[in-house]
Amino acid sequence: MTLGETACWARLAEARHGVLATLHGRRGVDAVPIVFAVLGSAIVIPIDTLKAKRSTRLQRVANIEADERCVLLVEHYDDDWAQLWWVRLHARAKLCAPDAAALDALATRDERYREPGAVVATIELAPTEITGWMA
Amino acid sequence: MTLGETACWARLAEARHGVLATLHGRRGVDAVPIVFAVLGSAIVIPIDTLKAKRSTRLQRVANIEADERCVLLVEHYDDDWAQLWWVRLHARAKLCAPDAAALDALATRDERYREPGAVVATIELAPTEITGWMA
Repeated sequence: MTLGETACWARLAEARHGVLATLHGRRGVDAVPIVFAVLGSAIVIPIDTLKAKRSTRLQRVANIEADERCVLLVEHYDDDWAQLWWVRLHARAKLCAPDAAALDALATRDERYREPGAVVATIELAPTEITGWMA
Repeated sequence: MTLGETACWARLAEARHGVLATLHGRRGVDAVPIVFAVLGSAIVIPIDTLKAKRSTRLQRVANIEADERCVLLVEHYDDDWAQLWWVRLHARAKLCAPDAAALDALATRDERYREPGAVVATIELAPTEITGWMA
């Protein structure tokens, strides 16, 4: 069953994480798990120093600087396939400085994003298309 | 902490689902949740009639026929970030007829894949690169 746009956004508002896929010159496509928050009609993804990673100079940032097209997939898996659902958002991605509105939105996901220096930048997604499905 | 190749494959062997990202001419990149099984050094993804979908003529198939490059991301999210991990497999994807080996591998995931007509085709991924990370 197809989910309408309002139902898609309601599920995004409740979700805690998703997968961001971006374009990579040689490999074609990359995908990473990400935390996000809904901010108005956009999506904010933190580039943070909280979750261990090799560097905050991330391949996902290089990818969106070369090609802004991306997709965010939020999905619920269950061995009971009657419980499956997903929401997919195609968007244009842009690297941004973390402003107060973005930090407020991210803090609804996890208070740790408010710690000084926790969020060094954000990736903002401007949606171009949203679709969803539930079993 | 980076996961070695053996550890990555061990986690794929235990996982039940992931996200497949492929290239799309206009949108750039697509992503869908998928069930998969490990078959030797390859990955088998069923195109099945079990899980409700609009059609078995899937966009993911059109995408890989135009560009075989894809990525499979398998991830574990937890609000306790010390439990996070993911495995990412870059690969070349090919549409195949479902042979006995593929059906056997898929049946280890769910016995329903053995039902006559359940699997109409498979997407086989030939890995080009595997990386993984755990907190």
